[in-house]
Amino acid sequence: MSTLKLVIGNKNYSSWSMRPWVLLQHFGIPFEEHMVRFDGFTPDSAFKQRMAEISPTGKVPALIDDGFTVWDTLAIAEYLAERHPEHPLWPRDRLQRARARSLCAEMHSGFGALRSHCPQNIEASLPEVGQRVLQEQASVRADLDRLQALWCEALASSGGPFLFGAFGIVDAYFAPVVGRLRTYALPVNTTVAAYMDRVWASPGVAAWVSEALAEQEYLDFEEPYRKHR
Amino acid sequence: MSTLKLVIGNKNYSSWSMRPWVLLQHFGIPFEEHMVRFDGFTPDSAFKQRMAEISPTGKVPALIDDGFTVWDTLAIAEYLAERHPEHPLWPRDRLQRARARSLCAEMHSGFGALRSHCPQNIEASLPEVGQRVLQEQASVRADLDRLQALWCEALASSGGPFLFGAFGIVDAYFAPVVGRLRTYALPVNTTVAAYMDRVWASPGVAAWVSEALAEQEYLDFEEPYRKHR
Ligand SMILES: N[C@@H](CCC(=O)N[C@@H](CS)C(=O)NCC(=O)O)C(=O)O
Ligand SMILES: N[C@@H](CCC(=O)N[C@@H](CS)C(=O)NCC(=O)O)C(=O)O
Repeated sequence: MSTLKLVIGNKNYSSWSMRPWVLLQHFGIPFEEHMVRFDGFTPDSAFKQRMAEISPTGKVPALIDDGFTVWDTLAIAEYLAERHPEHPLWPRDRLQRARARSLCAEMHSGFGALRSHCPQNIEASLPEVGQRVLQEQASVRADLDRLQALWCEALASSGGPFLFGAFGIVDAYFAPVVGRLRTYALPVNTTVAAYMDRVWASPGVAAWVSEALAEQEYLDFEEPYRKHR
Repeated sequence: MSTLKLVIGNKNYSSWSMRPWVLLQHFGIPFEEHMVRFDGFTPDSAFKQRMAEISPTGKVPALIDDGFTVWDTLAIAEYLAERHPEHPLWPRDRLQRARARSLCAEMHSGFGALRSHCPQNIEASLPEVGQRVLQEQASVRADLDRLQALWCEALASSGGPFLFGAFGIVDAYFAPVVGRLRTYALPVNTTVAAYMDRVWASPGVAAWVSEALAEQEYLDFEEPYRKHR
């Protein structure tokens, strides 16, 4: 097998890039990281111009396997699961797998309010923003309620420590969400808080976070709430 | 195997419901349809109250297999592909399958401008609206460009008649989009027009459309552009 190449954006800001990177890292699947730094998402940005050569959507992440490009996070996750049947990327049980896929598909297309009002910013700490957003936006409250319900339900039925027992695609899918809840200090119950700590301490996630913290970059267009670091 | 139950919304309006229904119908997989009619999406609507008992997201579609619920279209599609390996729901070739999944995942989370400005309304004919939207919304033009590019690319590389040769999940995924392009008469090239005609004539899609046309219901909150039928 040739070495996989994963194209990602800035670690501090790019939530979609985080998911497949964390997955590869967690399972020790060898890959080369290729970072295309964000400088903006307008057509004339260096990011969009470079990405146009790499992926038909012009977005990160993209996975390149021996010249073949897979784009969009969920398709990348499925590709990795098929390529590495030796690792339990999805739950081995058919029904558990269906449930894990339901959660990922729901995340893939949903939680729009949380995503737009609380954009990923791993190194930032914005508890006042979180408090204000939560007061003002019923849709963010609804997203948070749904998140807690789905995590608690999965943890109760699997027994933990991760959503379907061992760490897998679905936990990687929610890892950036854990990051948002941390950055904006959104209030969660103790079961959820403990799950969030386990996700943050898991090796793939911890590796991403430490590299995100090392970046030291401040990108104006990714910062609706700060003027500087 | 027990008979599958598919929970859907109104055929004329519910684009997400259309996808798994068309798929089941196309491949002749036996299922019972369970329609929960739209009356609104507010918490006190009959639709939301009924759906809260059926699916954790309160949305259609949901697939119920012997008491086990799978929700979200992409997870339903994967579940059906695993349950029916005798049918080529995904392309049999590993790389083609990865590409088909990239297109579905892109559709699942993207094309937001087209979706919000041109909501599904199979029985309506709104060419003037389409023309106006296209003039005013650069984001809809970008969605239309991307759609045409991805369809043409897939058709050219497979040789057609459908995106990956035979009709499959990815065509079912784009079937409601074909319906939008028809309703709003958005201008497309001849390759795309011919593909759209083939999709519309394919048995699963044609069956859905004829039942949608028979519904005769007018729902105010699904009609940004009309006052009546
Ligand atoms: N559905 C896509 C979303 C990818 C996405 O939106 N990536 C962002 C960075 S986190 C991006 O590249 N944005 C550039 C743009 O929107 O032009 C996926 O799951 O891969
Ligand atoms: N990501 C979901 C989207 C489902 C969806 O949005 N369904 C609409 C009808 S087409 C719905 O049930 N809306 C009710 C609501 O938003 O509360 C899927 O793919 O199944």
